[in-house]
Amino acid sequence: MDDTAKTRQIAIAYVESLDQRDWSRLAGLLAEDVVYEMPQTRERIRGRPAFLRFNVDYPGDWHLRVRQTVADGRLAALWLDVRVGADGQDACVWLEVGEQGRISRITDYWPEPYDPPPGREHLVERW
Amino acid sequence: MDDTAKTRQIAIAYVESLDQRDWSRLAGLLAEDVVYEMPQTRERIRGRPAFLRFNVDYPGDWHLRVRQTVADGRLAALWLDVRVGADGQDACVWLEVGEQGRISRITDYWPEPYDPPPGREHLVERW
Repeated sequence: MDDTAKTRQIAIAYVESLDQRDWSRLAGLLAEDVVYEMPQTRERIRGRPAFLRFNVDYPGDWHLRVRQTVADGRLAALWLDVRVGADGQDACVWLEVGEQGRISRITDYWPEPYDPPPGREHLVERW
Repeated sequence: MDDTAKTRQIAIAYVESLDQRDWSRLAGLLAEDVVYEMPQTRERIRGRPAFLRFNVDYPGDWHLRVRQTVADGRLAALWLDVRVGADGQDACVWLEVGEQGRISRITDYWPEPYDPPPGREHLVERW
């Protein structure tokens, strides 16, 4: 299996283990010194124990479904459909897999809905 | 050149042609029936002429820099640093390349900054 195939497998396992709250499986996918970043809030979490704790403590009955996985060497991008009850939000996740075959860097984006600016109604349709 | 290498090249050319306002180069990368979506505003633009018009008309001296390109077969994800003067915003872009080797689908996310929820200060650092 080449790097891309391994990274794709790790990216999918990452989402599955989060969705299933399978913390030991998740821990096995992460490098000890994994760095997790949320650029929208400028928050950073360093290290596997803190990142696991962050997820274990995260409130709500959230569930993750992969809309698209794009893997390329040791990089992957995940386009997720995240549900908490009836509410849904998309997320964009960027992963980096280290030389040891474990996730070394995770960057999460949580884009919120907003109203479109005026002036382009003639070009767009809404759904 | 395999699909992944072609898709990567197309994805990079897409960003370059937008950044340089090279509309004829951009047009050459797009399928006639390209579909552009912005899920945050639930806006959709159909077809090359409307998508080109949207970009030509887009206000501001915006510039795009690729932070990461992930290509996988005929899919690509672009992590962009978008600048308008001194203001910066990240964007996440998902591309699909059709059988003819032209971009058939583009999905843009524009995640905005927000304040982190309380309760996780003990796990995170801010930057």
